[in-house]
Amino acid sequence: MRATIIHGNHDVRVEEVPDPVLVEPTDAIVRVLLSCICGSDLWPYRSTRERTNGPSRIGHEFLGVVEEVGADVRTVRPGDVVIAPFMWSDGTCPHCLAGLQTSCLHGGGWGENGVDGGQGEAVRCPQADGTLVVAPVGEDDERLPALLSLSDVMGTGHHAALAAGVTQGSHVAVVGDGAVGLCGVLAAHRLGAERITLLGGHADRVAVGRTFGATDVVSERGDAAVARVMEMTDGLGFSHVMECVGMQASWDTAVAIARPGGTVGYVGVPAGMTTGLPLGSMFGRNVGVRGGVAPVRAYLPELLQDVLDGVIDPSPVFDLHLSLDQAPEGYAAMDERRAIKTLLRP
Amino acid sequence: MRATIIHGNHDVRVEEVPDPVLVEPTDAIVRVLLSCICGSDLWPYRSTRERTNGPSRIGHEFLGVVEEVGADVRTVRPGDVVIAPFMWSDGTCPHCLAGLQTSCLHGGGWGENGVDGGQGEAVRCPQADGTLVVAPVGEDDERLPALLSLSDVMGTGHHAALAAGVTQGSHVAVVGDGAVGLCGVLAAHRLGAERITLLGGHADRVAVGRTFGATDVVSERGDAAVARVMEMTDGLGFSHVMECVGMQASWDTAVAIARPGGTVGYVGVPAGMTTGLPLGSMFGRNVGVRGGVAPVRAYLPELLQDVLDGVIDPSPVFDLHLSLDQAPEGYAAMDERRAIKTLLRP
Repeated sequence: MRATIIHGNHDVRVEEVPDPVLVEPTDAIVRVLLSCICGSDLWPYRSTRERTNGPSRIGHEFLGVVEEVGADVRTVRPGDVVIAPFMWSDGTCPHCLAGLQTSCLHGGGWGENGVDGGQGEAVRCPQADGTLVVAPVGEDDERLPALLSLSDVMGTGHHAALAAGVTQGSHVAVVGDGAVGLCGVLAAHRLGAERITLLGGHADRVAVGRTFGATDVVSERGDAAVARVMEMTDGLGFSHVMECVGMQASWDTAVAIARPGGTVGYVGVPAGMTTGLPLGSMFGRNVGVRGGVAPVRAYLPELLQDVLDGVIDPSPVFDLHLSLDQAPEGYAAMDERRAIKTLLRP
Repeated sequence: MRATIIHGNHDVRVEEVPDPVLVEPTDAIVRVLLSCICGSDLWPYRSTRERTNGPSRIGHEFLGVVEEVGADVRTVRPGDVVIAPFMWSDGTCPHCLAGLQTSCLHGGGWGENGVDGGQGEAVRCPQADGTLVVAPVGEDDERLPALLSLSDVMGTGHHAALAAGVTQGSHVAVVGDGAVGLCGVLAAHRLGAERITLLGGHADRVAVGRTFGATDVVSERGDAAVARVMEMTDGLGFSHVMECVGMQASWDTAVAIARPGGTVGYVGVPAGMTTGLPLGSMFGRNVGVRGGVAPVRAYLPELLQDVLDGVIDPSPVFDLHLSLDQAPEGYAAMDERRAIKTLLRP
């Protein structure tokens, strides 16, 4: 079958790899219907460090049809359309039971340690019962792109909102107008936020953010953005700030616009940090920081229901639809900010 | 009158200063009954940086008797015994109303900008109504040392416990066996924590911690402490960690022993940080960080009642009682770890 392989800096290729086969009795084989490219896939794509272990599989968001299951699999059957969270997990360890499947004691990531990546024609899914969520739809359902977003980006935005303590009536700032930030807006809106200020400077993305529920937009950056927010909030800042980027500059902004006693909920992979968190500023103003890698598996059932009910539709974040073979162009388009997020059909 | 003045590195003196007089109609003059030395007073005491503004008043914890009040003061009267939180505040701004008096828009610190320090014979207290809390006791009440602890250290320990999310039945780790850490143990115990593990290596301090409610003690440091905690918790760590030091090493330990999804509640002034928070480790395990400078004014009424009712007695943290004139020895004793915390009587 074909799958994406990352060879190095700005070098992703679609190549022939072995067809997946069942290895453990808890495995399932999933034929991929849709996968996509994550903002976090751009970190290795942009990295100039030598790949000491050589080329590797890449991609961690997909949904598909179950083709085959191991003898111990109970919750999914061949023919089921299933959504895969961006990490696999057993569903039974203390962390999974606590709803933190990203810390599963027996789980892991796609494309690592002999497990298939998500950008390919098929995937061997370990711990199928703990990982996969059945979507009661057909292979040709028009909501598949919306459902694919639950694999990562929508659940990640939801995690940022929860981590920031967003509830009914909250006034919220969302730092970053990438796909995660936009889904963060949608998540905050879904949770009942009354005022959602999106900090982002890309007109096309901000337009999506407005349709997702953003009530205000701050297009300035850095100190100017902070000044603008303070002007909007009588100098107080926001009690709920969602950091959806992971760069030093976005973190500095997020902490600076937090109201004393407020919380920064964060989900951006902190790959772009240089000086770390400004703890002194956090200390003096009692600004808390919560979040991290999103346990989207925990959120999948409720978000799935909302997609099926038409309550949310995150699919507009996929503004570039390509075939799997065009994955290199999908990466380039996101890298060059020509696309928010690229969807791939095998 | 006499008051402490910091001149530089390891140089605190007791000197004559002007008697305080009412300046604003919202002021009160308080004759100090008891004051004390804070662990955070040791930061400037140990600093080798040149004091660009020269010598300055120091000390921010005191209780005393109201001698005189300005025309606008309504809640305290001459003769009242009052406890001063370690920052003064108006009690009416948005942050004060939210219970975050440390961020008061019109407040400030003792010993700064022409306001008296707390280590002296008397203090002009700005914003007396918003700041001072009346204790219904006499000048010779034996509980005065316990009440003095509410000026900072006990309220700060309480803040760490709240920030870490400690509630009935919690399993908690407290990093640091200084006065704040010990009060943190007492606060966690008061909030109903079931298991309280104190990380500290000083036998005398740990002994106080045990009387305050510590159920377990980890005397190792660094990696050995982390290994010991993991052994005690089946490799999972603690959901509630209280960082009560503010040094890089204690922070690294606090984050490392936090269970995935857990929270580090912190109150140690982050003056000893070098590399910042380990955000990468926090991200992967969803470890949150909350806390900061403690709004002890918000906690004073309820903690005061508990001291009066005999529910808590934090006074054992004052293991060295000196006269104000002996303040230099009080600083030296704490600096050299011969005393946990020094109480001063004018």
